[in-house]
Amino acid sequence: MENKIYVVGMGPGKEEMMTGEALSVLDQADVLIGYTVYLQLLGERFQEKEKMSTPMRQETERCRLAFEEAKKGKKVALICSGDAGIYGMASLMYEIGKNYLDIDIEVIPGITAASSGAAVLGAPLNHDFCVISLSDLLTPWEKIEKRLIAAAKGDFAIAIYNPSSHKRKDYLQRACDILLAFLEEERACGYVENIGREGTKAVTCTLKELRNQEVNMFTTVFIGNAGSEIINDKLITKRGYQIERDTNICGNN
Amino acid sequence: MENKIYVVGMGPGKEEMMTGEALSVLDQADVLIGYTVYLQLLGERFQEKEKMSTPMRQETERCRLAFEEAKKGKKVALICSGDAGIYGMASLMYEIGKNYLDIDIEVIPGITAASSGAAVLGAPLNHDFCVISLSDLLTPWEKIEKRLIAAAKGDFAIAIYNPSSHKRKDYLQRACDILLAFLEEERACGYVENIGREGTKAVTCTLKELRNQEVNMFTTVFIGNAGSEIINDKLITKRGYQIERDTNICGNN
Repeated sequence: MENKIYVVGMGPGKEEMMTGEALSVLDQADVLIGYTVYLQLLGERFQEKEKMSTPMRQETERCRLAFEEAKKGKKVALICSGDAGIYGMASLMYEIGKNYLDIDIEVIPGITAASSGAAVLGAPLNHDFCVISLSDLLTPWEKIEKRLIAAAKGDFAIAIYNPSSHKRKDYLQRACDILLAFLEEERACGYVENIGREGTKAVTCTLKELRNQEVNMFTTVFIGNAGSEIINDKLITKRGYQIERDTNICGNN
Repeated sequence: MENKIYVVGMGPGKEEMMTGEALSVLDQADVLIGYTVYLQLLGERFQEKEKMSTPMRQETERCRLAFEEAKKGKKVALICSGDAGIYGMASLMYEIGKNYLDIDIEVIPGITAASSGAAVLGAPLNHDFCVISLSDLLTPWEKIEKRLIAAAKGDFAIAIYNPSSHKRKDYLQRACDILLAFLEEERACGYVENIGREGTKAVTCTLKELRNQEVNMFTTVFIGNAGSEIINDKLITKRGYQIERDTNICGNN
């Protein structure tokens, strides 16, 4: 593992939801680098490992730290929640890696919230889907809005990450209002809180009801496509064996 | 596990890319049901287990088989490649489950090709993205076309599943032609073959070049968004730390 940094997706949090590959990389690492909350989620198995962290929003510093530790000859694993390549640190590592060309990067995939949340809720992403983050820290809101509209027009099932935070309390409501301009109020939806951690909570509802739900930064939201149904309190998007009803929402495409 | 069927995502194929949870469920199962190719990918660990299968395209029969075996009191694991809830059997199980209300269903998520392929290629899905299958076995081609257009207009990164098969040799070419009406020829793209199996092959290229690549049913294709770049032969979609260049492709939204 010399002169190579592993960027590791740890999945939703529980060790049993990590892959064998990810566990093996962490076992072999000299130092585990990550956001403090994720490092804490790692259980006893990694208690003795050296751990290093930078605060939230100091992701660039965290990546540099990983390269600097690797330069010292340490085997470094940079840990991300979910999948390292889905809103994770993988791309930033490759960008910063331009300055550390003698150090290789390998991404170890993990279970992202779209997969783990969908499994709790039923099968909401069982056909073509989009993943959209409502966080406008790194993306202009206009771009997020444009993507919500495109997703609705394309009749995609949608997984929404980061639907809310302390500073963005009404963002899910704003997103639902945008979607409601294209989709029916009764569209089948749902959300999952604390996936793969203590206190997992799954709720199915209509799009109109979703608009008024209280969600937080640990919630993943799912919007069905035109053929999605709630069956026995599970949100189900069909594979396409049935003929989906025509939604007529794409007339201007 | 009585009266409960586990619908298990096995990831791309290698045992080390399965989660501990998935392995544990398979360990405890009496019978493993799945498409023959996936059953064969399971290694020695499960050699002694009873295995049952139905041919390709007989997915409905496979689900019924799972319920019938569970009714006999067996602990059943229905196995899908990748994630069971992403083009997998999860939603069909819930639909057929309407006729077997005394049997519970639990979905165990796995690493889907969007995650595992992205990890091989770099970080192509490190911002909002769409997953689209080009298979028109269960979806009208017009719907696929509509989704490709929506994905392009929304400036999503795109993962394309099932880009080709014996009967659909030119489908990736057709998809590229649709995208090229909205995206520049130089758009950063890539594809991965045989992810997590023998003979993994990763290629980066432009959208124009992608149009003429030979791909097969074991290929996953990735189209970057407007800000994606190829860095040291890796396809990188930025998290958004940089201001993305304006693409002006969405004037009619």
